[in-house]
Formats: sequence, structure tokens, C-alpha cells
Amino acid sequence: MNDFLDIRLDRDSRTPLYLQIRNAIRDLITEQLLPTGFRLPPERRLAVSIGVNRSTVVKAYEELAAEGLIQSHVGRGTLVAGGNEVQGRDAWKTSLPMRWTHLFNRQAARVNDPLISDLLSQLTQADTINLAAGVPAAEFYPASGFARICSEMLACKPQELLEYSAPQGIIELRSYLARHMRERGASLGSDGILVTSGSQQGLELIARIMVEPGDTVIVEEPSYPGAMQVLRAAGARLVGVPLDNNGIRIDILEQLMHRYRPKLFYTMPAFQNPSGMSMSEGDCRAVLDLSYRYHVPVVEDDAYCEIYFGSQRRPSLFATDVCGAVLYLNTFSKMMFPGLRVGWAAGPPEVIRQMTLLRQLADINTGTLPQAVLAEYCRQGLLANHLAMIREQYRQRRDAALQALSDFAPPGMSWNEPEGGFYIWCHLPPGAGGEMLLRICRNAQVGFVPGEAFFADGNSGSDHIRISYSRCHPAAIRTGVERVCAAVRKLIKEQGNPRSGRQNAEGLAPLAML
Amino acid sequence: MNDFLDIRLDRDSRTPLYLQIRNAIRDLITEQLLPTGFRLPPERRLAVSIGVNRSTVVKAYEELAAEGLIQSHVGRGTLVAGGNEVQGRDAWKTSLPMRWTHLFNRQAARVNDPLISDLLSQLTQADTINLAAGVPAAEFYPASGFARICSEMLACKPQELLEYSAPQGIIELRSYLARHMRERGASLGSDGILVTSGSQQGLELIARIMVEPGDTVIVEEPSYPGAMQVLRAAGARLVGVPLDNNGIRIDILEQLMHRYRPKLFYTMPAFQNPSGMSMSEGDCRAVLDLSYRYHVPVVEDDAYCEIYFGSQRRPSLFATDVCGAVLYLNTFSKMMFPGLRVGWAAGPPEVIRQMTLLRQLADINTGTLPQAVLAEYCRQGLLANHLAMIREQYRQRRDAALQALSDFAPPGMSWNEPEGGFYIWCHLPPGAGGEMLLRICRNAQVGFVPGEAFFADGNSGSDHIRISYSRCHPAAIRTGVERVCAAVRKLIKEQGNPRSGRQNAEGLAPLAML
Repeated sequence: MNDFLDIRLDRDSRTPLYLQIRNAIRDLITEQLLPTGFRLPPERRLAVSIGVNRSTVVKAYEELAAEGLIQSHVGRGTLVAGGNEVQGRDAWKTSLPMRWTHLFNRQAARVNDPLISDLLSQLTQADTINLAAGVPAAEFYPASGFARICSEMLACKPQELLEYSAPQGIIELRSYLARHMRERGASLGSDGILVTSGSQQGLELIARIMVEPGDTVIVEEPSYPGAMQVLRAAGARLVGVPLDNNGIRIDILEQLMHRYRPKLFYTMPAFQNPSGMSMSEGDCRAVLDLSYRYHVPVVEDDAYCEIYFGSQRRPSLFATDVCGAVLYLNTFSKMMFPGLRVGWAAGPPEVIRQMTLLRQLADINTGTLPQAVLAEYCRQGLLANHLAMIREQYRQRRDAALQALSDFAPPGMSWNEPEGGFYIWCHLPPGAGGEMLLRICRNAQVGFVPGEAFFADGNSGSDHIRISYSRCHPAAIRTGVERVCAAVRKLIKEQGNPRSGRQNAEGLAPLAML
Repeated sequence: MNDFLDIRLDRDSRTPLYLQIRNAIRDLITEQLLPTGFRLPPERRLAVSIGVNRSTVVKAYEELAAEGLIQSHVGRGTLVAGGNEVQGRDAWKTSLPMRWTHLFNRQAARVNDPLISDLLSQLTQADTINLAAGVPAAEFYPASGFARICSEMLACKPQELLEYSAPQGIIELRSYLARHMRERGASLGSDGILVTSGSQQGLELIARIMVEPGDTVIVEEPSYPGAMQVLRAAGARLVGVPLDNNGIRIDILEQLMHRYRPKLFYTMPAFQNPSGMSMSEGDCRAVLDLSYRYHVPVVEDDAYCEIYFGSQRRPSLFATDVCGAVLYLNTFSKMMFPGLRVGWAAGPPEVIRQMTLLRQLADINTGTLPQAVLAEYCRQGLLANHLAMIREQYRQRRDAALQALSDFAPPGMSWNEPEGGFYIWCHLPPGAGGEMLLRICRNAQVGFVPGEAFFADGNSGSDHIRISYSRCHPAAIRTGVERVCAAVRKLIKEQGNPRSGRQNAEGLAPLAML
């Protein structure tokens, strides 16, 4: 009976179950799949067959009766009422619009967070000092060098650059990347590299070949929201291992691995987003040791490794690993520019092969032209010069942000001093965080990202904000930090005056409006 | 107990279950998670807890005993044997390599077909006449126009082109595409367009938001293998509706919709891959009528619509639809060139929105530079000129292929005469198809795609081959078709001489080696 009624319930939906049942039966009646006089199943039987309470079905039938679509008859049960017939036998012109959202699967319900689009849309708000976006400064993009190589190559071998290419990536770029990683101590060949459309795609492919819905994945707390979204979309249950002032809590990581037997541990050991912290060499070894003991693969996201302010690069987990237990992700988005969507994954060939099989279904290959131009750019040695320049520039921006914080921050506000990357993670005095701070800062035309965005539970973190110094000139950074600090001061002061606080609390924008 | 043993079985794997159990327990012993003297669960209890027959566990224990890893002791049960200890407590240097393939999920097992890579690798075999690849001819790529616009735009606004852009696509390109589709009769705005990394990504996103594992999806029979792979990877059960000489079997489509209540119907109504056939206007209406009656959305893949040899474009299902029941996919890959990976999806805004949410997790956005250059190329009106040129060129190639077929084909071979697109679908005389034909043609240095690739069941279709006339000059097409026909003749002749047929049957390359 239920089969014929074809009622599919989405228990994750915000639409109440009784309305879902009403809608489904209404569709069947309106589309004449249930003719006039058709006897609906008794409430109790339908309730059992679709796994809801009888009262839920009763409510649904009441709604349908109120709409005149069905009628109860003593002794005959509940029948489809007349008057719903459409003239003629051709459904052509009389059909209702397709109800697509009823057809979405459970996966779709897990993908509902517009955070990335919303953050990207901030890039275009020119009148706001943008301490929110984790995007490199456009004025550093090596556009002229890139444009020159692009033009030369298009003139020289245009057809090759516009052709399909191997799903794993063009050999010129894979060879360069493998050599580059060997120079950092890793041992791999070009068969251990997959060129991806940004490191986002690399992580998504890993999640899709590894995570079974319900699997546990450990993430740092705080961690990169885009990664958490991808893992959750694959059905992972996220468990956070805290970072404190001394770095990752190895003791808690061990407890979590022992307790949950997780599928993966996702980490960003170099200049982490959002904390700006890096994993010590001892902690790197301890993490690998736990990975081996508990048989938990590590996904190392190394997007910021090239933006270091010290004398040399940090060793990567991937290069330190001796058991092939680490999958490595990186991207050209932070070290050069993001619009080309070129990144890479490195790992054991059997994993790279499986990721490649999935990626060719997903989009066949990363654009051939961007890959070829990047490979040539690197081959000519231009990347090294570019990196030397941006390291110095971003160091100056970090210094400007730190100086402004120490000049303007109120008592009770604290922060770390990152040795690389784009981010400063600020701890706020009690009561100074949350949506109120966002609102004041939006009025003051300065943007940041509130700490909640970086916690798997979506609730913690309101006592932190992330300040990105990558996107603005040092003078603007100083002004922006000054405005944020002024807002924090204002909130601390209002703590003693709760009335005004309550007044302002109305009409706040949701977090997703960031 | 099972929790502690942590045995995960992959019932889709080709590794027998008893070996999976052996491997899992062996790993636990070798990695010292089960110490010497540890008592394994009784066979029956383990069998129940992991859902296998007792005899399966018995076989696994026998294997482990034979390897000396466990020992049975009367009255004490089955214990882990000694001698497996690794010196020292630090797993650091003594750990085994991570066994990644044990960690892959069920989804990964559904993605194991290298067909696309293998076909792409054929592009580089210069000494073979390529009647296999469904790829436009490189000599027609509008490389100089594209290169000029690319250089001009990089010189004029380099930073903007190298920046992140909206996950849904840049507005310049979406507006152009929406206008272009309105000119073909569709009613939509730029919010109904999602720019994708090729139409492959569009279909993958649809499959991932719509298909629940176990859902039925109807495909044409024959159909495009890349689409069938994507749908199967999402867990769909594919059911084929036959195409015959008069087009799609509407009567069977109705039976299938009635019987299976499918989630989607995937169709390529214009110059279908591989049949070259197009849906008549009457059949288009009948398909939409069934879609409305049975509430089955239609996915229209329109990749070849611009390559028509008649006087005008065919109407699309999307433009004919009045209920918002059609999702539309298209790509620049066939009409311009494939290496940029730019395509688009069109549909109701609520579907486009859900696809956009997923795509930003998958790869954030399609490359900004390729989108911007394509939008400008179209804005300058260059696409229309290009399309007029390639229509004429491909028409000549089709004519060359048809002429060669009528000159060289043996009796019993038949084929259609496509009015657009890239493909001729040839029906072979009995006994002339299969791997033997592939082998002879490989030796004769001519490639085609055997019919099996296009059937959901992977078995039917051996009496057909697909000949693509897109990639070669007319003279090469003629030579290639002549060689294929000679091979068919040879096989027909050998039919009367079964001895030689058997001799040649050894050592055949698998289909995947194509």
C-alpha cells in the first residue's frame, strides 16, 4: 500500500512530517494517480508502513479534508473526493510544476551552508576594510609574468593547451611538483601526484573515497570551515582535538583515536587556519606515531607552508612519514592566486589512482591551459622569486597587525604571533564577542570572521575572532584593527550597562550573512 | 567484541570474505593490537556479530593458523600465538605500511572504470587513425581568437581574472548563456544558470543531489558511458530504454516509468552519443508528457546541439517543457575546445542553488580566467562565426564517412545517417563484432569504440560499433573506414572457417585497453 502511495519522508527536512505526508498525497491526487473514490489506507496502517505516529497521519488527513481533497465516510473509510479531475487525458498543459526539493537525497540535506559564497562576496565590498577573507592580496598577483607566458604558449602550441589532458594532471606539472616535494624531503614520483582543481577538490575526493556516512573524522579545534563542510557532506561525524597555547593536545588526540577509531585525522600543521599556529617537530612525530599505532591516516593540508617568515620552510608530516600514512594537499591559490583553481594531492599511488578515477567522473581534468602555464612559470624559476617577495610583504602586514593590536587592544584581549600564513587568532575579553561585535564592526566598515565558524560544534569559539592580514595594505590593517579594538572596548563598557546591550540585540544578521 | 576486533567487510569487493577477515585479524596481530595469548572470539560468535556464515570464519581461522599467527588449544579456545612481538614500545620505525585500500568506502568500489582515461590516451597515438575519440578536431580550435582576447584581458584587468569568483559562475557568462537559451525558446534568467567545469561536472552534481543509492535511473540504450559511470557511482541502478530505427521506444519508456518509479531519466535528444539519432518533436512531447504523468525529472544533455547539418537548431526539451521538469546540461567542449573545462547547467533556481552549494564544496568555482575569456569571446560575436565554420567542416567529414561506408561496407553491415554531432552507429553482420574486430583494427592502425561501452549491462551491443568522424581529415576518415570494413569482411569470411577463428582468439586485450 505504501509502495503505491509512494510517500518518501525526509526526516532531516524542516518541513514537519505531517505536511510532507499531506503534500505527497496531494500531489498524487492532483496528478490523478489516485482517482476519485480511491480509498486511502486507514490511518494506523499508513502510520506503521511509513514509520510515523498515527497522530501524524491523522493531522495530514485533516489537512487534506480541509482542502476538500478527501472525505471521510462512516463505514467506507477515507476516500479521494471528486472535482479534482482535469479535463482530457493529456497531462501536457495541466501538470503542476515539478517539486524538485522533494526529490533531493539525504546528501543534499547535508550541503546547505553558503559560508564560502558569502565570504567570497565580501571581496567585492570595496568600502569595508577586509580583515575577513583568507585570500592573497591581488596587488601581489604575478599577473604580468603569468600573462606573458600564457600569451607565448598560446602562440606557440595553442591546440595542445586547449585539448583534454590526463585526469591525473599534465606530466610537466606533476614532475615539477614531485621534484619540488622531494627537495623538501618527501619520497615520491610523479605517479604519487594528482593535480586537482584547488586543494578543496583534493579534500573532497579524499572524503568521497574514504568516508562512509557515520564514520568519525578528527579535526583540529578550531579548524578550516571549508574542510569541515566537505567532511560533513560526505557523512562524517566530526570530533575536535583542541589546540591550546602549546599546540595540539596530543594526549586528547590519543584518547580520541582510542575511543572513536576514526577514519581520518585532518590537520593543517603549518600556519594553521585560523589559529596561525604550527605543529612542533616533536608534535609532528607524536601525531605520526599515533597514526601508526591506531591505523588512522592523516590528511595534511599544507596550503600556507610557503608563506613563512622565518629562515626556512617547516618540515611536512608527509615528508616525515615513513609508513605512507599521510595524504598531502596543497594549492597554488595562496602562494600565487586562486582564480585558476590549481592545486595538488600527493600520496601512495593506490590512493592517487582511486582519487583519479573519481575525479575523471567529477570533471575529467583540471584545465589544461592553467596547468601548462603554471608548469612553465615554475620551470622558469619565477615562482621562487615571487615567493621571496610575498614572504617579505606578508611579514610586514603581520607586523602592522601585531603592532596595531598591541597599541589598541583593550585589557583582556590576547592573540598569538604567527610565524607565517595569513591569520591572527584573537581571544576576546568576556562578553565582547558574538554577533554584537559583528554588527558594530559592520557599521564601522571593518570585517573579520567570528570564531564560531571554526568549531565543529558551531557553538564554541564565540570568545575568539580571526583577523586576516593578507588582503589589506599595512595602513588599512592598522585602521581596521583599531576599529575592531574600539568595538571590543565598547562592548566591554556596555557589559556594565545591560539595558543598552539589550536594545542593540534586535535584528542581528545571522552568521551566514558574513 | 567485534568492535574491538574492528573487522570491516566490503561485500562489494572481489576479495573473498574469509580472506578479508584473515587480513583484518592479521593486521591486528602484526600491529600488536592483539597481544600474544589474546583469546579470539569463538567462530560462531564472530560469525554472528559480523554477519557471515560460521564456515567463513572457520576458513579465516584456518588460514591464520597455517601462517602460525594463531593456535587452537582444547578447552582454552583460539589464542594469538607468540613470536609476533616487535622490539621496543615505539611503533615509529616498525609499523607496516598503511593499507589504504582496506580503508576505502563502498562508493570507491563503484568507481573503478578507467574508460575515460583510456580513451583520452588514444588522442596521443599519432600513428593510428582515430575514429574512436568523441573530441573535436584540434585544427578547428579557435586558438588565435581566444589567445588574443586572453592576452588583451590579462593586460587590461589581470587581478580580476586571477581572483576567486562566485561559485555559480561570473555574471557576464551567466547572462550571456541565459540570453542565448532564451533565444532558443527557454524561459530563464541568470539565476537559472550554473557554470560548471564541463557538463560532466553538471551531471555529477545532479546525480549527487538527487540519487539515493538504490534509486533507479533510466538511460537510453545505447547511452554515453561517462554519464552511466557517474550515475552508477552515485549508487543508481540503471535501466535502459531502447532506441530503434524510429527513435526512442516511448511505449517501453512508459512501462519503465510505471514499473520502477525512477528518480531521473537521462537523455541526449540531439545527435545522441553514440547513435547519432535525434528525438522527433512528437517524441519530445511524449517524453515530457510521461515526465509529468509519472513525476520523473528529465536530464537533457545537449552537448552536440550546435553541431547541426540542417538549416536550424533543434528545439530542446528544456525549451519545450512547461512544468520545470527538465534539467539542462551543455558544454563548450564540443563546440569550441575541451581543455578549459567550461560547461553549464540550467534549471529551476532551487535546483541550481542546491547544485551550487555542492559545487562550492567540490572545487569552489570554475576557473575565473577561462570564464571571462569565453564570455568576452561570445560577446564579440565570434562564437557564431566559429560555429558556422565547424558545421560545414563536420558535415564534410560525415559525408566522407558515409561515402566510405557505402563504398567499402560488406553486405549485412548497416548504419544511420546523422544530421549533426560526431557519430555514426554501425550495425555489424553476425559474428563480426567483439574483441576480435578490435584486435584486427588495432593491428591495422585504426581505432573505434565497440558497442558494449554504451550499454548499461556491459554485455549487449557487441553487434555495434561507434565511428566518430570528428577528429580526422576526410581522407583519413575514408582510409580508416576502409580498414574497419576490411576487418569486418575478414571476420565474416572466417565465420565459415572456425579453426582460424579459434586460433586468433587467444591473448585478447581487455575492453578497458581501448
